[in-house]
Amino acid sequence: MRIALLGGTGNIGEGLALRWAPKHDVIIGSRSAEKAEEAAAFCEELLLEKGKTCELSGEDNIQAIADCEVIVLALQYQYAMPTAVAIKGKLNSSAIVVSPVVPMTKDGFLRYEPSQKYGSAALEIKNTLSDNEVVSAFHTTPAARLLDLDDKLGLDVLVCGSEKPKKVVMGLIKDIGGLTPFDAGPLEASYMLESITPLLINISARNRIKNSSIRIVGQQIK
Amino acid sequence: MRIALLGGTGNIGEGLALRWAPKHDVIIGSRSAEKAEEAAAFCEELLLEKGKTCELSGEDNIQAIADCEVIVLALQYQYAMPTAVAIKGKLNSSAIVVSPVVPMTKDGFLRYEPSQKYGSAALEIKNTLSDNEVVSAFHTTPAARLLDLDDKLGLDVLVCGSEKPKKVVMGLIKDIGGLTPFDAGPLEASYMLESITPLLINISARNRIKNSSIRIVGQQIK
Repeated sequence: MRIALLGGTGNIGEGLALRWAPKHDVIIGSRSAEKAEEAAAFCEELLLEKGKTCELSGEDNIQAIADCEVIVLALQYQYAMPTAVAIKGKLNSSAIVVSPVVPMTKDGFLRYEPSQKYGSAALEIKNTLSDNEVVSAFHTTPAARLLDLDDKLGLDVLVCGSEKPKKVVMGLIKDIGGLTPFDAGPLEASYMLESITPLLINISARNRIKNSSIRIVGQQIK
Repeated sequence: MRIALLGGTGNIGEGLALRWAPKHDVIIGSRSAEKAEEAAAFCEELLLEKGKTCELSGEDNIQAIADCEVIVLALQYQYAMPTAVAIKGKLNSSAIVVSPVVPMTKDGFLRYEPSQKYGSAALEIKNTLSDNEVVSAFHTTPAARLLDLDDKLGLDVLVCGSEKPKKVVMGLIKDIGGLTPFDAGPLEASYMLESITPLLINISARNRIKNSSIRIVGQQIK
């Protein structure tokens, strides 16, 4: 698939670029085409060190999304929203927009604080990019672990969205290897995923661990 | 310690009663003393089957909390709030109130829906029982797994509250065996724990698993 990672010069964006590049057509997007090209070259180099020859391209955001089937808004909340506005009307109507975006504020501890009007970043993005399907995912996937190509991960990724695009994204998650997707409901349930990000950052800080994530522990239904 | 489990005739209450009875003085509370006594006798029997002789008592809620150091509101949200009002002024001021309470509504999927005024069940309970410390915990601990005494658990429990009472509750969680407590911040952060309960129920329903819970996966800080 052709996947654009907007904010692909940041940690989670570069991490996903590295992990998807061996199997997919990955375009790193940034407000600066030059920075995007640098990030793409950096990813190619890291992959080559592991014996993997992959081609990634770097473009400015608007160029990056051209003909893409999946577009990840790998950006902090304050940059994700203006980027959504900037790409509106310029992406394929069939493109799936993936949101790992989490609105957070600091108040002694990190608080999940979505806009009251929309209730979650995912629904706020959906409101802007109303012609496209939005799927929320990767809120609990530590960027640092994706960036370490020796890390076998072994993590779970909770995914919210409409059934069809959610299946596509769950497939892409499986392609990474070491990540197991779980269906966590419709896009409207995203607020219950997004709030886990600040929770995990608080837990890391208070329990002397880093790059906290979660695993789902369930019992098989016989 | 002397622990009252209000709503100890329900699943999570009985589960905690079973797990704490070997080490602590456990009193099951209910609106009906008779039902509480029955639940206590049932727990004693289950423990005896496993070769553990424990004494549990059953009392009506007001009797149950007398002289207790820890009081768990093991009740659904709609019963927990009137129970908090009913016990107000009748519990030791040094007693710690533990809230596993989660306000949920069904809207195709389960939604976390706390009162807008308080933002979480824990803060709503704290507002009523303002003389006492409130600690939130056990939102991701499946009752069915506590009730199965052959289950070694292997789960994590996220805990929010002020430092001192939180330490006490984290100690009690360790006493159960197979449960690892994680400090998840002050009581004000409870909404980020509480919302995981409906999220896990949705995940169970959609991924053909049951009794879903979470584990925290972190990396040691060197």
